[in-house]
Parts: sequence; C-alpha cells; structure tokens
Amino acid sequence: MTIRDAIHQVKPDGAYLSTSSALERADALRRVRDGLKRDWQCISQANRNDVEQAKESGLSPALLHRLVFDEGKLQDVCRSLDDLVSLPDPVGKVLEKRELDEGLVLSRVSVPLGVIGMVFESRPDALVQIAGLCLKSGNSVILKGGIEALQTNKALTASIKKSLEDTEIGSGWILLLEKREDVGVMLKSEGDIDLIIPRGSNAFVRYVMENTHIPVLGHSSGICHLYIDDPCDVDMAVRLAVDAKTNAPSTCNSIETILVDRSVASSVLPSLAAALRAKGVVIHGDQEVCSMDASCVPFKEGDWDKEYLALEVNIHVVSGIGEAIAHINLHGSHHTDAIVTSNPEHGRLFQRQVDSADVFVNASTRFADGYRYGLGAEVGISTSKIHARGPVGLSGLMTSKWLLDGSGQVVAAYMGPHAKPFTHKELV
Amino acid sequence: MTIRDAIHQVKPDGAYLSTSSALERADALRRVRDGLKRDWQCISQANRNDVEQAKESGLSPALLHRLVFDEGKLQDVCRSLDDLVSLPDPVGKVLEKRELDEGLVLSRVSVPLGVIGMVFESRPDALVQIAGLCLKSGNSVILKGGIEALQTNKALTASIKKSLEDTEIGSGWILLLEKREDVGVMLKSEGDIDLIIPRGSNAFVRYVMENTHIPVLGHSSGICHLYIDDPCDVDMAVRLAVDAKTNAPSTCNSIETILVDRSVASSVLPSLAAALRAKGVVIHGDQEVCSMDASCVPFKEGDWDKEYLALEVNIHVVSGIGEAIAHINLHGSHHTDAIVTSNPEHGRLFQRQVDSADVFVNASTRFADGYRYGLGAEVGISTSKIHARGPVGLSGLMTSKWLLDGSGQVVAAYMGPHAKPFTHKELV
Repeated sequence: MTIRDAIHQVKPDGAYLSTSSALERADALRRVRDGLKRDWQCISQANRNDVEQAKESGLSPALLHRLVFDEGKLQDVCRSLDDLVSLPDPVGKVLEKRELDEGLVLSRVSVPLGVIGMVFESRPDALVQIAGLCLKSGNSVILKGGIEALQTNKALTASIKKSLEDTEIGSGWILLLEKREDVGVMLKSEGDIDLIIPRGSNAFVRYVMENTHIPVLGHSSGICHLYIDDPCDVDMAVRLAVDAKTNAPSTCNSIETILVDRSVASSVLPSLAAALRAKGVVIHGDQEVCSMDASCVPFKEGDWDKEYLALEVNIHVVSGIGEAIAHINLHGSHHTDAIVTSNPEHGRLFQRQVDSADVFVNASTRFADGYRYGLGAEVGISTSKIHARGPVGLSGLMTSKWLLDGSGQVVAAYMGPHAKPFTHKELV
Repeated sequence: MTIRDAIHQVKPDGAYLSTSSALERADALRRVRDGLKRDWQCISQANRNDVEQAKESGLSPALLHRLVFDEGKLQDVCRSLDDLVSLPDPVGKVLEKRELDEGLVLSRVSVPLGVIGMVFESRPDALVQIAGLCLKSGNSVILKGGIEALQTNKALTASIKKSLEDTEIGSGWILLLEKREDVGVMLKSEGDIDLIIPRGSNAFVRYVMENTHIPVLGHSSGICHLYIDDPCDVDMAVRLAVDAKTNAPSTCNSIETILVDRSVASSVLPSLAAALRAKGVVIHGDQEVCSMDASCVPFKEGDWDKEYLALEVNIHVVSGIGEAIAHINLHGSHHTDAIVTSNPEHGRLFQRQVDSADVFVNASTRFADGYRYGLGAEVGISTSKIHARGPVGLSGLMTSKWLLDGSGQVVAAYMGPHAKPFTHKELV
C-alpha cells in the first residue's frame, strides 16, 4: 500500500468515529489512557533507543530534553486524557434552529471536520495530546513527528491502535507517517485531509502554508507589541513590559517591540530600561531612545520586523496612538498586541483599529493562550482570519452542517404568483 | 500606480470603514442607492454601449440577457440596498465573554474580515450587490467583472465612489480592476486580500481555488443526490425528485443522480420516470433501471460524477441506505443531498453519515439557499468545511477578535507555586 493510498483510506476508516456517541468517545479516551500504562515498558524502551541514537548523532541538549518521554510525561499525558473526558462534547451542538414553514425545520449543528493532518517536531507527548483532541472531537488524524522520535511515536501509535482494536471505533482513524517525504504527499492530499496543523519553527510553518491548498491552522510568527500611551501608570507600564518580554521569551505571545508615546518617553524610559536590563534584556533603540540612553544598541534596518524569541527588545518612540497603531498594523504579525493607558477611549480605539487576533488593554500579551482563556484544551494559536482566530480550543476541529427536516415540501410551492410565504421563526 | 500598488492601498484606505459605526454604514448604503438614481443616465448609456459592443462581437443571447442593466434592474438593486439597511448590524457582536479574574475580562467580538476580492461574470447588478454587502459589513472590496460589462461596471463604481466622497468612509474602500491579467495579481495578493469570492463557471471557480493561497469562499460544482429509501411515500418521492431536478435545472442545488433502494425500485420507477419525462427530463439508467425501462439511456462510465446542469438525470438502484450513503460520499460534491423515507431512524443516519454541507430529510434539495434559509442576504454557497459551509449570509464576511480588558495583570502572577487561580466565569 502506498502512502497515498494509506492517507486516502483514513477518511472511510474513520467514518464510524465521526458519527460515534460522546459515551463511546469518552470510553475510547479512557482505553487509550489505560493502554499507555499497560504498554509502558515497550514505549519506554523505544524512547530510550531514540534518545540513545539522538545523543550519538549529536542532537542539541534542548532538543534531547524535548525528546525524552519519561514517567513524568506519561503521568502528564494520562492526566490530559482524563481532562479531555470531562470537557463538554463538542459534537452535535445546535448552533442555529429555524422553522422555515410548518413542518419544515432547519438546524445547523456542529460536526467533526473529518481528517486532521498534524506535523510536529521532537516532543512525543504531542502525539498523544493531538490524538486525544481528535478522539474527543470525532476527527481522524494523520500524524508526522520528528524523525528522531520515530521509535517512540511508533510505540505510542501501536499502543493507541491496540487499545481501540476491539471497539467499533477501531484503529483506522489514526495513521502515523514515518518518512520526511511523506509530508509532501500529505500536503497534496486535498479531499483526504480537511485541516493541517503544523507545529515547529516559523520557517517550517511558513513552508507548510505556502505548499498546500489544504487549510492550515497556525501562525508562522509572533511579532507582538506593547504600546505605552499618554496618559498611563508608569509602574504598570514597566510591569507589563517586563512580564510580556521576560516571562517566557521564546514563546510566540512575548513582545518584540515596545512603542512609547513621545510625551511620556522621558518619564518612562529610565525605569523601563533599568527593569528590563535587570532581567538581562538587550535593548535596541531608535535614535531618540539612544540619545536618552547610551547603553542601547542602535536600531538597524529590519529590526522592527524581527522576532527575537530571546531576551532582546526594540524600543521605538512614536508621536501618539495613531502612529503606534499604524506601526503595529504594518510591522506586526497580527498575533497579540497591547496598550497601557489610563484613557479608556484610547483603549477602545486601539482595540478597534489594531488588526490582530488578540488586542489587550492594560494586560500582558502573555495572556493570549488557550488555557488562560479558559478554552479547556488548546489546539493551537491561529493568526488566520478564517475559521478560527487567536487561541483555538476544540471548536477549531469542528465544522457545521445544515440539516433540514421536512414533510415532502417542494420549492416550487414557495415561488411564483401564488408563493407560500416562509415563516422564518427562530427556534434557538 | 501599478495594480499591485492599488490593491495594496485598499486595506489602509478602507481602515475608516472597518471601524465605522452602524449608523455611518447605513447612511452610506442610502447614499449609494440615491447616487445610482442620480447617475442613472450615465450608467444606462454605459450599459447600452456594452450591450451594443457585445452584440457586435456575437455574445450569446443568454449572456446578453445577463448583461442588460435596465430600469427594472436598477429598482432591484436599490431595493436590495434598502433591505441591507434594515438587516441587523453584523459588526461588534459579542460572541463570548468570560471573566478570567477580577478586573480581567475577555471577550470575542465579530469584526469585518478586511478586504474581500470578488471576481464575477457578466451581470453588472452583482457589482452593486457585493459592494452593498461589503459596505454593510465594514469590508473593503476589490472587484473584477466580466470584460463585456466593463463600461457599465466603471459607471457603477464611479457613482458609488462619488456618493461617498464627502463622507468619512470615503471612496478608497472600493477598487474596480479592469483587465483580465489583473486577476492574476489579485490571486497573489496574500496579506492585502483576506477572502476571495469567485462567481462563474465551475472551471473558473476551480481555477481560482487552485491558483491562490488566499482563502476562497465558493463551490466549484453541485453534484446533489436524492435517495429514495424503503419504506417511503412514493408520491412524495416523485414530487421531490421532480422539484429537485426540474424547478431550476441550471442551479447548483439541483440533483444530478437519484438513488433508489432495490426493494422499492419496481414500485417507484414507473411513476418516477413518467413524471420526469413529462417535464422533458432525459434519464440515464444503470443496467437494472434500463431492464425495467427500455427508454432510459444506458449509463456510461463517469456519469455518476457529472453535473448535467440540464434536464438530464441518472437513476441508479442501490441495495439499501448504506450503499446510498457510500455512493453519495464518493461521487457527490459535498453540497446538498436528500433522503425520502418514512423511517425516522434512516433519516437520522443519513443526516449523520452524509458528509455534505446540507443534508435533508423529506424536502427538496432546492431549499439550500440563503433566502430560503432566512439568512437575510446571501454572500454565496460554500462547500468548504472551513470558515463557512452551505449557504452563507453576512456572517461569512466577518471574523472575530479577542479583546482583553485588564487593570495591569501580569502572567507571572498566575504561574508557579503561588499562582493565583483563574476564575473563568462565563459572562455571556
């Protein structure tokens, strides 16, 4: 069987899952959890082999760390499977319901998208997490993990399949791809895959987006801003800047550029720069900033469009909120941007005019996250405007379907000079 | 200014529209309506020139008919602009609202997508209709109409621009492209255009879908089915088949194939075939159908995947609902499919397992339409599972944005051993 054929087979093989009941899916999640514990020796051995091989081939310590799947990780993924069981069922929600005429009722209900294609890097726990999200939401899944985690991923997938083999859901809804070139086949599988979720470097996500006609859920970069407005609480501004830059510098919702209104620049800059430097942050300043603070690195062409993902930040003085908004819409990545202001009207204006997925007033950009938003489970963060935007929960794996229940009605009766009128009565 | 530059300028020039109030947008719609009447002489002359030229170049009578923009059409588009004014405002709806902690409130609100790219064929009234939908929803629009309607489209666009010139919304939110090669530039304008809506032939829509990375709202074909189940009301089956095939054979929600359960075939076929032939329908039958009805055209390879868009239909005998569903999921275009049945469980099963945008029980497929669904205004019909599915109203031109209103909160306070808990209290 070719990879093409195997991918093509996932949708029909996952048909039962896509229409299974919430109870069946909850039972399946519990079986998967128990199965991972049952097969732990085998999974653990596979992971030790992967780690051994990765050490020999000189994988960086950071990547090695992500590759390890130990008992702590096992506990984590089992807990997250339990959490999924307790979340409300995303399938079959009635989103709209309308009587079109007597005995003719229209409803729009949530249904699984179908087949999710997931490409992820070294962390094997991501495999269990995404398989769990798909199972919960009635979606089939095609996975491609990092080559360095192949043995672990094979052991995890085998365990999941084995746990469901004897159920009606079966094991055909999950497929693990093994080779790098399989990703190319995946990206060309329109019709067989309904949504691709790439996780990995910006360059990789961008590559996926540019090389497929299948919709992609994700974001290629997070160039986020904090704008310090006049008037504002200077202490708050400094606190938010430090949190948004240093709480987790390598995450996509950390800021890369701080914009400061010229009229508060001289009162804000000294404490801002001191607080950032105390956390080890290197400051890149424009001419005005450098003239006030000689320790800044002078701004270079292109700095405004850079995602440092490290303890580095740009500071740029602007003449008011209008210039700040224009700068953000031009140089940002439409991810998350925040304003610190004591003027509520400026807050509203900023939220209206900044064209980003998440726009905050007086809060750190680091709040842009599915867990903090209370979404239950995070599927990813999307900077696309289509389908799902910002942190995306299980609803990002759903689409909807229109159901019409009639009693023999024909359209001809509602047309022409003697047309029956529609009642169009909302029922939800 | 190159076309590339002109397209790039639409988003900034439409920024005011995207954040304008419902009152401003309603006023703009009324101004556009009044302007079309004011400029009627000029629009009418431009249209007569287009029609004259089209006649000389030998345009088909059907296309000529679509090209004509007479006083009747003017009344129609003015009425549809008035209808838009009276629809509820789609902008700024609060879709979710949640307290994350005291003084930290998250909300998700509906906002315009940004810039819509619209490619349409000869009908100039489509230009006014889409411009109106965009104005209502706060979106800018880039339009490319059929070359044969160019003078009319230019006159209409000039009138719309003139009507809004003196308002704060201005005239920069609408751009008319004139040349065929401009479509290629449009399809490559990621970042400047947020959604493309192509109207035209299946081949054209498919071309657009395959040649852009911008999301596309539409459907390339409508291969719809009616499945006649056992048990069913034979009269109802015949009535629905006739309506779904002959009410408007050239529309996407008309059926191309009728599937009949073998156990009712002999009782359904004679009256079904007679009723269809009375309306002039040519029947293509499989071997079984042809053996019962010698006047059928024998089925040829590929007929099941054909969109006739004419008074022709396939009739195919299947052994039960399972085979019917499998046939539809394999040969259909995931648009609209219906079952006629007296068994409610079969109805539910069909609705669950048929993977189409619209799935009907005991009603004609022709009901799949924004007006009949009560959506207020139809933007298009989508067979994509992403963003919008089935008939799409104004909500298809909207996305959402997460707004967080805080009072200086940092994420660090919600992490680590002394983490504050989130309240996650639903407010909507």
